[in-house]
Amino acid sequence: MQKRYPYYLANKPMQPNADLEVRDKFSGRIATRVALPDDKAIEKAIAAAVKAEKPMREFKPYQRQAVLNHCVKRMTERSDELAKALCVEAGKPIHDAKGEVTRLIDTFRIAAELAPQIGGEVINLEISERAKGYRGFTKRMPLGAVSLITPFNFPLNLVAHKVAPAIAAGCPFVLKPSEKTPVGALIIGEVLAETDLPKGAFSVLPVTGDKAAPFVEDERLKLLSFTGGQIGWDLKAKAGRKKVVLELGGNAACIVDEDQTDRLDFVVDRLIFGAFYQSGQSCIGVQRILVHESIYDQLKRKFVAKTRKLKAGDPKKKDTFLGPMITEDAAERLHGWINEAKEHGAKVLCGGKRDGSMLDATVLENVPHDAKVSCEEAFGPVALLEPFSDFDKAIDRVNDSDYGLQAGVFTNDLTRTMRAWDRLEQGGVVIGDIPSFRVDNMPYGGIKRSGLGREGIKYAMEDMSELRLMVIRDA
Amino acid sequence: MQKRYPYYLANKPMQPNADLEVRDKFSGRIATRVALPDDKAIEKAIAAAVKAEKPMREFKPYQRQAVLNHCVKRMTERSDELAKALCVEAGKPIHDAKGEVTRLIDTFRIAAELAPQIGGEVINLEISERAKGYRGFTKRMPLGAVSLITPFNFPLNLVAHKVAPAIAAGCPFVLKPSEKTPVGALIIGEVLAETDLPKGAFSVLPVTGDKAAPFVEDERLKLLSFTGGQIGWDLKAKAGRKKVVLELGGNAACIVDEDQTDRLDFVVDRLIFGAFYQSGQSCIGVQRILVHESIYDQLKRKFVAKTRKLKAGDPKKKDTFLGPMITEDAAERLHGWINEAKEHGAKVLCGGKRDGSMLDATVLENVPHDAKVSCEEAFGPVALLEPFSDFDKAIDRVNDSDYGLQAGVFTNDLTRTMRAWDRLEQGGVVIGDIPSFRVDNMPYGGIKRSGLGREGIKYAMEDMSELRLMVIRDA
Amino acid sequence: MQKRYPYYLANKPMQPNADLEVRDKFSGRIATRVALPDDKAIEKAIAAAVKAEKPMREFKPYQRQAVLNHCVKRMTERSDELAKALCVEAGKPIHDAKGEVTRLIDTFRIAAELAPQIGGEVINLEISERAKGYRGFTKRMPLGAVSLITPFNFPLNLVAHKVAPAIAAGCPFVLKPSEKTPVGALIIGEVLAETDLPKGAFSVLPVTGDKAAPFVEDERLKLLSFTGGQIGWDLKAKAGRKKVVLELGGNAACIVDEDQTDRLDFVVDRLIFGAFYQSGQSCIGVQRILVHESIYDQLKRKFVAKTRKLKAGDPKKKDTFLGPMITEDAAERLHGWINEAKEHGAKVLCGGKRDGSMLDATVLENVPHDAKVSCEEAFGPVALLEPFSDFDKAIDRVNDSDYGLQAGVFTNDLTRTMRAWDRLEQGGVVIGDIPSFRVDNMPYGGIKRSGLGREGIKYAMEDMSELRLMVIRDA
Amino acid sequence: MQKRYPYYLANKPMQPNADLEVRDKFSGRIATRVALPDDKAIEKAIAAAVKAEKPMREFKPYQRQAVLNHCVKRMTERSDELAKALCVEAGKPIHDAKGEVTRLIDTFRIAAELAPQIGGEVINLEISERAKGYRGFTKRMPLGAVSLITPFNFPLNLVAHKVAPAIAAGCPFVLKPSEKTPVGALIIGEVLAETDLPKGAFSVLPVTGDKAAPFVEDERLKLLSFTGGQIGWDLKAKAGRKKVVLELGGNAACIVDEDQTDRLDFVVDRLIFGAFYQSGQSCIGVQRILVHESIYDQLKRKFVAKTRKLKAGDPKKKDTFLGPMITEDAAERLHGWINEAKEHGAKVLCGGKRDGSMLDATVLENVPHDAKVSCEEAFGPVALLEPFSDFDKAIDRVNDSDYGLQAGVFTNDLTRTMRAWDRLEQGGVVIGDIPSFRVDNMPYGGIKRSGLGREGIKYAMEDMSELRLMVIRDA
Repeated sequence: MQKRYPYYLANKPMQPNADLEVRDKFSGRIATRVALPDDKAIEKAIAAAVKAEKPMREFKPYQRQAVLNHCVKRMTERSDELAKALCVEAGKPIHDAKGEVTRLIDTFRIAAELAPQIGGEVINLEISERAKGYRGFTKRMPLGAVSLITPFNFPLNLVAHKVAPAIAAGCPFVLKPSEKTPVGALIIGEVLAETDLPKGAFSVLPVTGDKAAPFVEDERLKLLSFTGGQIGWDLKAKAGRKKVVLELGGNAACIVDEDQTDRLDFVVDRLIFGAFYQSGQSCIGVQRILVHESIYDQLKRKFVAKTRKLKAGDPKKKDTFLGPMITEDAAERLHGWINEAKEHGAKVLCGGKRDGSMLDATVLENVPHDAKVSCEEAFGPVALLEPFSDFDKAIDRVNDSDYGLQAGVFTNDLTRTMRAWDRLEQGGVVIGDIPSFRVDNMPYGGIKRSGLGREGIKYAMEDMSELRLMVIRDA
Repeated sequence: MQKRYPYYLANKPMQPNADLEVRDKFSGRIATRVALPDDKAIEKAIAAAVKAEKPMREFKPYQRQAVLNHCVKRMTERSDELAKALCVEAGKPIHDAKGEVTRLIDTFRIAAELAPQIGGEVINLEISERAKGYRGFTKRMPLGAVSLITPFNFPLNLVAHKVAPAIAAGCPFVLKPSEKTPVGALIIGEVLAETDLPKGAFSVLPVTGDKAAPFVEDERLKLLSFTGGQIGWDLKAKAGRKKVVLELGGNAACIVDEDQTDRLDFVVDRLIFGAFYQSGQSCIGVQRILVHESIYDQLKRKFVAKTRKLKAGDPKKKDTFLGPMITEDAAERLHGWINEAKEHGAKVLCGGKRDGSMLDATVLENVPHDAKVSCEEAFGPVALLEPFSDFDKAIDRVNDSDYGLQAGVFTNDLTRTMRAWDRLEQGGVVIGDIPSFRVDNMPYGGIKRSGLGREGIKYAMEDMSELRLMVIRDA
Repeated sequence: MQKRYPYYLANKPMQPNADLEVRDKFSGRIATRVALPDDKAIEKAIAAAVKAEKPMREFKPYQRQAVLNHCVKRMTERSDELAKALCVEAGKPIHDAKGEVTRLIDTFRIAAELAPQIGGEVINLEISERAKGYRGFTKRMPLGAVSLITPFNFPLNLVAHKVAPAIAAGCPFVLKPSEKTPVGALIIGEVLAETDLPKGAFSVLPVTGDKAAPFVEDERLKLLSFTGGQIGWDLKAKAGRKKVVLELGGNAACIVDEDQTDRLDFVVDRLIFGAFYQSGQSCIGVQRILVHESIYDQLKRKFVAKTRKLKAGDPKKKDTFLGPMITEDAAERLHGWINEAKEHGAKVLCGGKRDGSMLDATVLENVPHDAKVSCEEAFGPVALLEPFSDFDKAIDRVNDSDYGLQAGVFTNDLTRTMRAWDRLEQGGVVIGDIPSFRVDNMPYGGIKRSGLGREGIKYAMEDMSELRLMVIRDA
Repeated sequence: MQKRYPYYLANKPMQPNADLEVRDKFSGRIATRVALPDDKAIEKAIAAAVKAEKPMREFKPYQRQAVLNHCVKRMTERSDELAKALCVEAGKPIHDAKGEVTRLIDTFRIAAELAPQIGGEVINLEISERAKGYRGFTKRMPLGAVSLITPFNFPLNLVAHKVAPAIAAGCPFVLKPSEKTPVGALIIGEVLAETDLPKGAFSVLPVTGDKAAPFVEDERLKLLSFTGGQIGWDLKAKAGRKKVVLELGGNAACIVDEDQTDRLDFVVDRLIFGAFYQSGQSCIGVQRILVHESIYDQLKRKFVAKTRKLKAGDPKKKDTFLGPMITEDAAERLHGWINEAKEHGAKVLCGGKRDGSMLDATVLENVPHDAKVSCEEAFGPVALLEPFSDFDKAIDRVNDSDYGLQAGVFTNDLTRTMRAWDRLEQGGVVIGDIPSFRVDNMPYGGIKRSGLGREGIKYAMEDMSELRLMVIRDA
């Protein structure tokens, strides 16, 4: 990790100051310093992006592909550096950090593959006599300058899921990464600055939330793509004429059906991973585990025993599974929720203690449904166990939530599989695995309070472009 | 036209009162009376729609198709009645009214054809080693209860463009038609009440704008589809977590290129139609006409001469071309704009006078670009002529507008055709015809201030549904 | 049924003779007489079809739709007559005959819905620098005059599956229905003759097989679509430059897995239907039944008991389930196969006797795999029972066949469902039902000796059209 | 170029002999020697390919992509070597040879991008009550072992257009390159041998035509994809149950419309290139040039003058435009056609002489329409000029041919552009350029005698795979 990082304004590195301190999330020490953009820089970036709309529109598909392939190449070369930066700035265990770098590269690769495939339709309009002699054609036009706001938990790949489709679709962008973990985005900026993207096509501005209004409100920006918490809905109301895409997380549930006896160890391993990887700080981290009563006790025993053995500590060590939460505040908040649940009757099966930003991998049962740790997004290393007697009721229980991003269902029953797909109110239903599964070309996004719209390169490219129809009347 | 019309609440006619007077827009006399829903009725309708989400979701594609085919059949049988009602309540010349009924039927027919074609994708997820053994499937799920608000100018077909896809997509709906022209929507409601749509699947509530807040703000509704004026943007800000589709009109332009000499009469006929049909009260009515200087005078002469001959008067008479505007207020507003333009140097080539809600078919030239009648949506029988010397500058002139719905280009030049498609900032570009062309299966909608999203059954069905992914992990 | 039927040459009924006798397949008596086309008529029909290529190409999508909708309307009106004709000429029990008429109507309806949806793609060609400035567009053009040959077992719906897409795609056609069951096709011809299809667009010529060479060999015809037996492969070799689509049947198998205990009665009912409806004369009739050993005996008992109770006899009676085979020769052929199997150790569990064209519903077990009744297409009322111990081996057993049209798998196991889809070498795999399931919009067709290509309106329309690319180079 | 090249049998190089002499097409000297496979080798290759069907089917999309990306990488590294080999073995001018290598790389890159995008559809089957509770899913399965036969004129890229989609679609293949130019295919084989393609997945066998029967007739092979001459149609008749794709060339025409006066130099340059690049040995080389009479003389003058200046000679020299034809026989054959045309009244405007395999760039006018050089495929450096007076007649003239691969139309008239697309009986119509344009992702292939099916990676992948339907019946 470098000592200082510039921000990027209209494709160029800027280091007017080093006012933003980025801490090692485990040690709490300052790890690096980043240039903090002021209001003028934001204004300049937006103006530059708007000016870049035309050149970006005319930047050919093969040129966009070349830019994206350059990213794939450079990120592959710099993957160790990227993983280490992630590990420090996000407190993400090094193994997970490496996994994220792999996915970062996948994401850019998918965008590179799709960039030349932007096309349209030839539509028959001769559907009744009055339209005789008319022909229809569509193509997708870039939407124009877009605004991208990303969170701290996947400082690389969640940036990639906005930046890569923007480039593929031909949209200039201004990106506000989380001020807690700006380094990943800035390295992406550094790589983009090596390309021949039209001037002004991108800016990476690690401003703090209180300065971010123009990203939301400026009417020159055509789309706001935000990944983060429930504040997203407030941004939507302030977004003016912009299209808005929101990826806001949830309280993901996983059903374990009665037929899983023979593979219970596998199921438990996946649940552990889903609940506690990167300290549960994932939109699709396993929060609520619904287990058929016939195997509840057995699963509970195994789950708690394995959770107890998880190695917590310095994320830079290879064998660490559980690192710190992003801030002490975050850990304190969730610790409070655990205590609140306890006060209302929840039983702590393991964990439950906090040391600074390190929160134990915590397993609860008997949690009241209206406890925050059940009905809100925990976003930390906590899992709730709950038995069920009837598969349909388990579905109802999953649906009894304000959120609906992804759910997992461990079952080998075909009928129940189809019923889960039909009835679970979610963006995605994962059969035979945890809700935490994502591969970067799949449609990803939630319903209810979990968000609006889908990411996954192809889907994001659609959101970042618009149909332009041409009708030709035969003379 | 009946003496009284009920509103429809949860599929059932209700006639608690007859408080809403609907006037004959030409005579100004009360033509019929309509039951006016109160706040409680709106609340009940929304609650019923939400309750109908599940039965509608389970209402099979072939059942949805049967409902839509019933509409096609009944509307065909009742087409004369529908045309007459339109003629009276909207002041729409009977010939245009019949045309709208034809399109109403087309629109329901298209929806009937598409209803059984709702499907999804089988997606390969094995794009890298970590996703080995995973399979992806998507389907489109109905979004849930939706809110539909429609304007006065196409009281049938613009209702159809929301109602028919809602049924095809499986969404219960609450519809607020314009209180000025509610009858068309109520007859559609009457036809729907003959079907076996699940209880609560639809309500048609002709409330006045000041009572319409729940249509916009109620969080139980999942989508707001609004067609109307610029107020749409305010609604968007108040729409909470809803998806929002806006069809808001524009100040449509049409370019007539230098190579049109041989077909000038045809061009003029189409321009006349585009500018003055239903008194210019169409989102894509021709407002700005840009003519190559080499044919400007010739076209102007023909255009003005023909405009002068347009027959104005009672829309119920077969040979009437120009009926009244929707209200005297509307005519007054536009008359004011004409006068404002005159004061700033515009020349009135013909028309320009007003008698109550009857406004002359008016042709202006030399209108300042910042005059309201040029830069805002005229939505009345006014056309502006303007010469240009260079095709690219004509494109710039069209783009020099806050709006972007459709534009027309009369040219037979291939290169210019492609340039127009590439460069005109519009939802649709019509080559060889006026911007006013629409056939009901094409994607239709604007950019900039003209709106958000596309209608045209297939596109509306996409907006009224959402992807639900299923991932299966091979054991 | 009329006393005499004309054939159709270039849209017109022709009754030069009544040389073709059509028998009541149950009574063996002459039921009606049909005009038999001679070689000159075939030549004229082909010449007319070729001449109709241009007018059909220019016959607009909405006009094609109108023709198809006319068919839907008229066939609905004449459905009783059609069912009765089917019952007599094919010996098909009246209940099945009515079902086929319903599907006939479905098939035309689907084609009517798809006709206006013929479109194409706008393709980005700018995939590398050398292609800068090029744009790609495709549309589907009708292939031209096509040749259609249909079998006796579904004299209406298998005709519809060729005729309806030909009209929707814009192809003139010459149709040779089975000379054993020409009446269904001739009534379709009668209905088409009521429409304004361009002159020469269709001919229905019930010639005998020995006169059919021009249907196969004439180079003016662009496609041969044949449904029938293995002779199809010989036709392919003689087809010259034509595209060839072959639907040739198979020896369909159905696996019943061990988890079906609770629904065994349902399974047996479906198997009985699949094996014996219209006397097993269906390409996807159940021939081989593989049952998990744990339920084999139980299923066998139920299956045999129910088979014994099937009512055989006059197909015109409402309660008849089993009618005659198409000819005495056919019954004799299959009876011989049964006897051959017996000689090699097969056990006849029920049935096995023949009276003229009436063959018993016959159930065999212990049939050697190389017996004709196992490895060839039985195409009659015979089912073979065979136990299996391992699901994967059951799949291997199904695959151990020269055919591959459809297979059925009764299982509720998700993993096995996916494995069946992955591993069964078939055009279609039906989970939870018999292989005999077909709905008329699904892709339908076999691999291996079962054929080439897929039917199902959309797929047939693709085969009957070809891509025409347009590239535009920007000046 | 190496002294000796092995062939590839089941992924492995084999050098049992060096019996096949490959000559430098310009000097006539032996350039290298290649191992010639015998009948046993062919049998082994086919058996190995069949055995590789299962492992190839299970070779995951990301693994196929990795193989294709390896090809891209290695071919980029070896591009000089490849170009030189092409130049020698095909007599292709070095500049064209380099261009072909670039396209070879494009072709593999496109296949790499598409490999992970193989998917299918989720189809609604609930189109009528009888299908209630059924769901449809499709996926594309690899067809199995395929047979590929390629010609001498693009020894790299026409091989790539079969090999790359076969790998992407998951099909093992046996490839017979032209025995005149086998080296390109063998280097591709060498690169593939470096990958982890399943054993037996590919064989490259440069056998002579008289030994090639098994490539056509062996029933274990599921598809024959042949690029070459009219003999393709004979192969189709012998292909048994195989699918057959034929790319067979034509006598491509180009229309130059009256509005091209201002860009005549550009038009002439493109025509020269189209007619004479690689000595006209291209399926879409310009053979017939139809010029509007108003510009005929002017274009003729320019065209002939420029043709006279083309530098002919050793293709290895940088400034050589015109190299030898592939064999002296080929040159002799075409020279004969030129002379035949002369005898029947054609005028030689330039060229017309032959020296061994070097044939002059020859321009003819007044050629009788039934002269071979007009109505057959010239496949050499000959262009025919012909004036026309009416655009529609020019279209008729182009259509007056047994062939229909691609046509070019230089026009800037929109109406004529659409008419050309509607009426030209071709696989592709190129507006504003010569028929010789191809970019490797576009659908490419002819109608009439020009062939059957389309190449262009996506289209070839469809031909090399087949739909497999799964139906699930809800319990």
